Amino acid sequence: MSARPQQPPATIGVVGAAGVVGVSWVAMFRHHGFDVVAQDPAPNLAGRIESFVARAEAALRELVPSTRTPGRVRCVGTLSELGAVDYVQENAPEREELKRQVLAELDALLPPDVVIGSSTSALLRSSLVRDCRVAPSRVIVAHPFNPPHLLPLVELVGAAPEDPAVAWATAFFRGLGKTPIVLRREVVGHIANRLNSSIYREAVSLVEQGVASVEEVDAAMTAGPGPRWAVFGPHLLYHLGGGPGGLRHYLEHLGPSQVRRWADLRTPELTPELCAELIAGVDAAAAGRSVEDLENERDAALLALLRARTGSGATAEG
Amino acid sequence: MSARPQQPPATIGVVGAAGVVGVSWVAMFRHHGFDVVAQDPAPNLAGRIESFVARAEAALRELVPSTRTPGRVRCVGTLSELGAVDYVQENAPEREELKRQVLAELDALLPPDVVIGSSTSALLRSSLVRDCRVAPSRVIVAHPFNPPHLLPLVELVGAAPEDPAVAWATAFFRGLGKTPIVLRREVVGHIANRLNSSIYREAVSLVEQGVASVEEVDAAMTAGPGPRWAVFGPHLLYHLGGGPGGLRHYLEHLGPSQVRRWADLRTPELTPELCAELIAGVDAAAAGRSVEDLENERDAALLALLRARTGSGATAEG
Repeated sequence: MSARPQQPPATIGVVGAAGVVGVSWVAMFRHHGFDVVAQDPAPNLAGRIESFVARAEAALRELVPSTRTPGRVRCVGTLSELGAVDYVQENAPEREELKRQVLAELDALLPPDVVIGSSTSALLRSSLVRDCRVAPSRVIVAHPFNPPHLLPLVELVGAAPEDPAVAWATAFFRGLGKTPIVLRREVVGHIANRLNSSIYREAVSLVEQGVASVEEVDAAMTAGPGPRWAVFGPHLLYHLGGGPGGLRHYLEHLGPSQVRRWADLRTPELTPELCAELIAGVDAAAAGRSVEDLENERDAALLALLRARTGSGATAEG
Repeated sequence: MSARPQQPPATIGVVGAAGVVGVSWVAMFRHHGFDVVAQDPAPNLAGRIESFVARAEAALRELVPSTRTPGRVRCVGTLSELGAVDYVQENAPEREELKRQVLAELDALLPPDVVIGSSTSALLRSSLVRDCRVAPSRVIVAHPFNPPHLLPLVELVGAAPEDPAVAWATAFFRGLGKTPIVLRREVVGHIANRLNSSIYREAVSLVEQGVASVEEVDAAMTAGPGPRWAVFGPHLLYHLGGGPGGLRHYLEHLGPSQVRRWADLRTPELTPELCAELIAGVDAAAAGRSVEDLENERDAALLALLRARTGSGATAEG
């Protein structure tokens, strides 16, 4: 395939648009002035999108000012109704066979220069494109971090890092104010969900070992490491942990202690008893709030944090 | 020992007051109106404290309004000059023999009802108190997360979770607006530094495996998982990851996939080549900024985030 021209596309297809990630993409693309074809076999697709967009658009207006009029959204039930689109964001359920089939169908349907980005959170691109016959290299991973309309991260994985489809997606997402990161090789969970899994493993292990409750582990996170990770990444933070001598001093003097700490980390076994304790713990923490209540709370807090970060002038990436 | 009365103490000793953690505690206690005896053999202790307090007090006034006049700071070089104090925060260098000796000396010097909290980040309380002969149970871990004057977390480890010294410290730190978390049993790195080590292990592993550069891993963190962890902890976030069915649904349907992802995480070997790559990576990210420049940037951004979080009304702990 050849690289597409750099002007923003006019119409974007969102496949699997009824789920939590899909609706969030619809809201974001629409906010930036793109017309969106939202595809999902789910009943009441239009209703779900309408209510999500109503909630998300206010946040988007605050966070990502756009002078463009929000685009129109057309809802369809099948892939063959997508029509002419300039980019497709695929959000089918996270099952390999299903996604393979959806991507192969899209690859057969769309002109070979239309890039197709998959929101897969932990499947490998090389497996997902196995049934694509027309132009597999235009099928890439474009993984956002939930909620996509608020968090800037988009992880990109192509057939190769220099692939034209990856270059096109990098420019496209950067133009929308996102932070695209191109992986140099594919790996299960990309970057963000590997960090996520690492933390969850230890968070579960601390409960399993009886060090602290579910609520206490979560409170330690939001009162301690969490806010720092909203500002700097782990590498730069360990650089600061070395004092004036920075990471070189840290690794020379405390590297061995870090290696000992790594050896002390363990993988918990998700027994029925431990799962019951984890579920009881989050139920206690939720204190009657539904998952939707908590999502609204999370998004309001994220919006406030992201606005504060923009305003503080700190450059997270150096 | 008996539990101390709940009114705030008037004078606090900060031992090891010249280091980055010590000066931050001095600034915080002083801001809350306590007189502080700052002990450290380092030259120019008074100068270091003065310049740090000048910078920190503005942030503290914004973040933790206090109607009390800031306390006075008296600088001393040796432990025997501490005089009468109502609590001691110990911040000697993180070497077990040294801290054991400092804590034993403090235990011999101070009346047995004065609680002594150690800022140790990864040593076990049971080892640290081994040479205390007078009242070892009043010697506890009281580990802050850097920078202590801004981040609310204080991890407490006592001889037992119900110990009077732990109860006293819980009430004391809560009264200062901090978030004390009592560990039910001691473990290397407490809670926060185990989470920190888990993340760093994977952040280093991603560079080792050639998935992304130091800067790209850090950018993925601050653009994705980081801001979420400033809002909710890992347990509640995985509860949201389960959709309307919450964590129960998540563990039933995606638990096995999480276990597979845990199995895919690995411990990198800190070879000289890898260390050189990590150091070159943070140097590139720092782009000429000194560690002190980066600390100032981090603290300005943290202040903005913590103020936004307070204002957004989100309750991080449920």
